[in-house]
Amino acid sequence: MTLDAVLARIDADLPQALDRLMHLLRIPSISTDPAFKPACAEAADWLVADLQDLGFDASSRPTPGHPMVVAHGGTGDKHLLFYGHYDVQPVDPLSLWDRDPFDPEIQDTPAGRVIRARGAADDKGQLMTFLEACRAWKAVHGSLPGKLTIFLEGEEESGSPSLIPFMQQNAAELRADIALICDTGLFESTTPAITTMLRGLLGEELTIHGPNKDLHSGMYGGAAANPIRVLSKILANMTDATGRITIPHFYDGVTELPDAIRAQWQSLAFDHAKFLGDVGLSVPAGEQDRTPLEMLWSRPTAEINGIWGGYTGDGFKTVLPAEAHAKVSFRLVGEQDPFAIREHFRKWVQDQLPADCRVEFHSHGNSPAGVMSIANPAFEAARQALTDEWGIPAAYVGCGGSIPIAGYFKTYLDMDAMLIGFGRDDDQIHSPNEKYDLECFHKGIRSWARVLAKLA
Amino acid sequence: MTLDAVLARIDADLPQALDRLMHLLRIPSISTDPAFKPACAEAADWLVADLQDLGFDASSRPTPGHPMVVAHGGTGDKHLLFYGHYDVQPVDPLSLWDRDPFDPEIQDTPAGRVIRARGAADDKGQLMTFLEACRAWKAVHGSLPGKLTIFLEGEEESGSPSLIPFMQQNAAELRADIALICDTGLFESTTPAITTMLRGLLGEELTIHGPNKDLHSGMYGGAAANPIRVLSKILANMTDATGRITIPHFYDGVTELPDAIRAQWQSLAFDHAKFLGDVGLSVPAGEQDRTPLEMLWSRPTAEINGIWGGYTGDGFKTVLPAEAHAKVSFRLVGEQDPFAIREHFRKWVQDQLPADCRVEFHSHGNSPAGVMSIANPAFEAARQALTDEWGIPAAYVGCGGSIPIAGYFKTYLDMDAMLIGFGRDDDQIHSPNEKYDLECFHKGIRSWARVLAKLA
Repeated sequence: MTLDAVLARIDADLPQALDRLMHLLRIPSISTDPAFKPACAEAADWLVADLQDLGFDASSRPTPGHPMVVAHGGTGDKHLLFYGHYDVQPVDPLSLWDRDPFDPEIQDTPAGRVIRARGAADDKGQLMTFLEACRAWKAVHGSLPGKLTIFLEGEEESGSPSLIPFMQQNAAELRADIALICDTGLFESTTPAITTMLRGLLGEELTIHGPNKDLHSGMYGGAAANPIRVLSKILANMTDATGRITIPHFYDGVTELPDAIRAQWQSLAFDHAKFLGDVGLSVPAGEQDRTPLEMLWSRPTAEINGIWGGYTGDGFKTVLPAEAHAKVSFRLVGEQDPFAIREHFRKWVQDQLPADCRVEFHSHGNSPAGVMSIANPAFEAARQALTDEWGIPAAYVGCGGSIPIAGYFKTYLDMDAMLIGFGRDDDQIHSPNEKYDLECFHKGIRSWARVLAKLA
Repeated sequence: MTLDAVLARIDADLPQALDRLMHLLRIPSISTDPAFKPACAEAADWLVADLQDLGFDASSRPTPGHPMVVAHGGTGDKHLLFYGHYDVQPVDPLSLWDRDPFDPEIQDTPAGRVIRARGAADDKGQLMTFLEACRAWKAVHGSLPGKLTIFLEGEEESGSPSLIPFMQQNAAELRADIALICDTGLFESTTPAITTMLRGLLGEELTIHGPNKDLHSGMYGGAAANPIRVLSKILANMTDATGRITIPHFYDGVTELPDAIRAQWQSLAFDHAKFLGDVGLSVPAGEQDRTPLEMLWSRPTAEINGIWGGYTGDGFKTVLPAEAHAKVSFRLVGEQDPFAIREHFRKWVQDQLPADCRVEFHSHGNSPAGVMSIANPAFEAARQALTDEWGIPAAYVGCGGSIPIAGYFKTYLDMDAMLIGFGRDDDQIHSPNEKYDLECFHKGIRSWARVLAKLA
């Protein structure tokens, strides 16, 4: 049976597959920081070369931001598109890393062997699972497993500013029968999962301006507006004592879970106490009338991701600063409209300002929530393939994160998208000491071989 | 008349006096930042050498922090002590300075000539007015104007941790008939002033700890405690909608102004609109039932001097940080007890924490308010001298800032202290582009010559 031969080839080639991943992990492709623009280009070029080795017609396409990698190869009736992203999150605070985030290492841990590096799980390790599956297939069969398009982005961690224009300008080239996206996780470590609900994301940065210069808190304290205080009061007002978000019209478009989905989620027996306990917490912080799983998968949020103002160095400085800043993000669900919420948020902030203060806003991207239809038979076929590999029935799950691309495939290319990934909750993505389990990488490659055998 | 000769000598020697000040301003003696410890020692040594040139028996005395400069000289019935500080505030944000803060320059501005540098007004320019008055006196008379002790501190901008122990250990050496302190300002640009009310200061730094590592806001947002939100809510609660501070027992010991002082302050015709307008503001931000002058001189405050947490770089990072930080300071009046308020504040913060968060506190110094008695006839004598120099009756005023040394002279050495200074409200002390008006420096030196003629 040729699938067995492909799986055997994957097992035998694992050391070489790891070497290739290590090379990609050494490239510090932090997309949000302009200092790493050359590294992003280098990562794209490395992927183009690897895809060309696999027989793809691959190229790095310039955008106003970081390049897109697009590759076409293989033949067949079904046309599958695979999406991943080669950019990574920033690494600060660097002092909390046990080693250089861009000097990857295979480490033995009590929970098994891990690949330790920024981007190991999000998303370089995951995207390489698909490429390695293609490589093994080609080694056994002499050809790719079907008609494939590979589409790799370099701006996923920085709001994807070039994505929609690129999809619109290259719609004919990118349109396929279904999109496969590898940027999600397993359910509770060992259950394979296809993610069918994703939250949207709206990112806003605000700067409160008060006095026209930094002031001495002795000479002006009490009488002069303090932008840090103004900002704190606004951010504090964003949620009430029950955890509900107070911005007018924020909940417009938020729908309740269908009963069938709620029942399936209840059957997953999510361990709420362990979920919070694993990160040192015990009190669900969101809407008090929701379970943590609902908070994460089906309820919107308003979070503060960064704040700064005044003197933040060693010692003390009795300053009233001229300005204070925050980065705020909203996770969106259902039919919430990110553009409408941005306007409601900005007006709500404006309405709370003292008459002698002003605010500047800077937008950091927005995407609506994504809700996949599982009517396409590819979903059930993939679910069977995943079940075969992991020996546990694969689940349809939600995801608290935002992977806007899934919705974009539907909106701009009229394609269904299927989110299959192999991350674990303790991968520390976006945190110091990110890792990807060697088992996830290995079984992820095998999973894609099985999925491709069913779909292509 | 010999006073006239001293004043003439001051006028003639002004260029050389400026050269000396420039030298002192070039030394970056930022006391709060450990990186500048050698510069603080250098400033102390430079002052010791200059005082020795003037005939003082001067030395730099080590402390656990930065050295004290102590010098004795002259003879006479009255023993006067002069206090100033040679350390300066940090210079960030450096990008807002028009030039290197430690490369001083005399600049022509529409409002007159200014000395531009960090520390020009606070306090190097001010302390040098006294030394230059002594120098001119000695040039004319061949001796110092009386029995003098000079006492210069290097930790005034960082909470003065060594001051009280040093005063206690050297009480016999430092005790004099009266202390003269030059670290305050004129009243509204041209009215000479003796400051008789000073606010105290309590500095607190707090760190809110939530999850045991930085989290992905998609994977945990909503369900997990966000330390920035917890901190914002606490800081927002610190004042109510009327500007009143809500910490329990905070107002214990706050007394109302005596009618006589209130009447004198009203006669000063302080221009509230101009005071705020000069810094781009228009709405008094403190207690709504108080005038801005009361807010500044006789009411306590709770200010946020710095805040930071999460991702604060370019771009966006959807992180829920493990911790968030703020630096908070309280200006104290009347009989408010800084130690009691610290305990009340810390308990009040603790009481607002979610059960799975914790807080760490770090103290940044504390001092009670200072209220001078003007019964000592030296006050009226000095007031007459200042009136002679400036041609406008000198006023007894309050000060929003905290100069703990004034109270310490009373508490630890049983001496009255007289605060006479020549700063202006637009000196931008603690801000970028600090300056000291050349007129203030020049007339400040002349003022001290006149005060010494009356007192010594």
